[in-house]
Amino acid sequence: MTEKTVLVTGARGFFGGYVVEHYLAAGWRVVGLGHGSPGSACAGRVVWHQAPVSLERLERLEIEPDLLVHCAGGGSVSASLRDPFGDHARTVDTTAAVLEYIRRHCPRTPVVYPSSAAVYGNAAHLPASEGSTAPLRPASPYGMHKLMAEQLCASYGAHFGVSVAVVRFFSLFGEGQRKQLLWDACRKIGQRDDLYCGTGEESRDWLHAEDAARLVAAVAAQASPACPIYNGASGTTTTVRQVLTLLYRDLAPSRHPRFSLAVRHGDPCDQCADIGHTLSTGWAPQIRLETGVRRYAQWFEAVCDD
Amino acid sequence: MTEKTVLVTGARGFFGGYVVEHYLAAGWRVVGLGHGSPGSACAGRVVWHQAPVSLERLERLEIEPDLLVHCAGGGSVSASLRDPFGDHARTVDTTAAVLEYIRRHCPRTPVVYPSSAAVYGNAAHLPASEGSTAPLRPASPYGMHKLMAEQLCASYGAHFGVSVAVVRFFSLFGEGQRKQLLWDACRKIGQRDDLYCGTGEESRDWLHAEDAARLVAAVAAQASPACPIYNGASGTTTTVRQVLTLLYRDLAPSRHPRFSLAVRHGDPCDQCADIGHTLSTGWAPQIRLETGVRRYAQWFEAVCDD
Repeated sequence: MTEKTVLVTGARGFFGGYVVEHYLAAGWRVVGLGHGSPGSACAGRVVWHQAPVSLERLERLEIEPDLLVHCAGGGSVSASLRDPFGDHARTVDTTAAVLEYIRRHCPRTPVVYPSSAAVYGNAAHLPASEGSTAPLRPASPYGMHKLMAEQLCASYGAHFGVSVAVVRFFSLFGEGQRKQLLWDACRKIGQRDDLYCGTGEESRDWLHAEDAARLVAAVAAQASPACPIYNGASGTTTTVRQVLTLLYRDLAPSRHPRFSLAVRHGDPCDQCADIGHTLSTGWAPQIRLETGVRRYAQWFEAVCDD
Repeated sequence: MTEKTVLVTGARGFFGGYVVEHYLAAGWRVVGLGHGSPGSACAGRVVWHQAPVSLERLERLEIEPDLLVHCAGGGSVSASLRDPFGDHARTVDTTAAVLEYIRRHCPRTPVVYPSSAAVYGNAAHLPASEGSTAPLRPASPYGMHKLMAEQLCASYGAHFGVSVAVVRFFSLFGEGQRKQLLWDACRKIGQRDDLYCGTGEESRDWLHAEDAARLVAAVAAQASPACPIYNGASGTTTTVRQVLTLLYRDLAPSRHPRFSLAVRHGDPCDQCADIGHTLSTGWAPQIRLETGVRRYAQWFEAVCDD
């Protein structure tokens, strides 16, 4: 059997790293493009190109991948509020470059685009279901740019026959994630600061990045010019308080998180995912939240010991 | 009274030229940025910067305009199908640059974005009414990119307080337009070719570009962070056959247009504009279709005599 090749943009990002590991474990050749240098864990196993994702740079790779997973893009709501122009370039322009590269050079290569539940916006429209009828009201430049990138995917599918699948990931987490709730909480626990923004009752649908990477592979098989859209979530809603309680059990069993009641601009209040379409691919999440949080806590402790 | 300044991107395009003429006639100072050299008619009256629309180039203008009209952008459905990446750059990236320039340097300057009815897509969803509830199903990369540019306008309004107004223009026409139905028809009449694509029963809402430029000025007064959206149209639907009949009356009274019944990919079949919101600005179209077509025919004959 010929070895298959996957091209992963943003391969050095948090989620890109999980996608790389998934395909390495599955025996694929992995080519990465993006910022940062390859981690020691990947040394020698990934063909790494350290460069911004542009059409010109993609064309210079001179490969014909069997799959492209476009993980590059803006990484947070707050960064998009500080620098909307940069976030637009990172999310929308890189997607335009990826799709044009495919159209020109390997039009039969499917593309998976990991998008974000931020395209749905706030709690007024629950539950978030996939497909064109779901109301889309992004509440941040980050979410708007993800939506625009999805629209480019749909446009290249409809007009140029490019096969695409979009996954709108809800709250991804996993070892290696150096931002968002678990990272912030681990650091705060170390600083003996137990006060958190919000009410604690904000709900999220948490998915471990390892399950998410398996979902990328599942939807890759469904990519088509119709550009199907999937929610990337577990289907289970959990409050911030519940997640922190799990983390405290592992890291600070004698203490408890407290909440300031202040709400951050642009953050979704409550999100609840309908994953009926996602489950139809045959995929199902395998890592329980308790297990995932414990793995994260252990990773954080190991990192801090370094 | 201090002289006011308007910055017009794409000032050398067909519609940009009408916007320039409108503001010159109103006594404004006009600064233009975009491709092409200024026409003789504008010589000495417009401060012209011949350069692509980019954030860096906008910042080098070192002006603080009282209004920005962003006419730069992709110009046709067919060009967007040939070169979607270029169309994306011309429409979406220039809009990102314009909005970021405003956010950084003159956040109180209102922006008018001339968009297109192509954001509505095809005939299934008539009549096209403004506002967030109108179904948006662009049928071409051109239309999708215009929609993405609108979304950027709304995002910069919602998150950064930039005042914007969007006008979705239907079928603009006027002297100087060297493409689309009237231009093609005038050339065909000269070549004694009376066969046209389509059925002739496709309906459009035609608006003379002079009326459209007055509408830009009317909605500029309504620009706000809520990013109001207006349909730029006359409110009267006319078939292609009716328009051509008017043109033939002027240019080839003894002949008649015939129709091939073939339909062009990406072109809307029928569009009918609801202009209730537009009329609420106090604007109303002034140039009757018969008058506009006659002016166009006279201009074409003068151009051909050159």
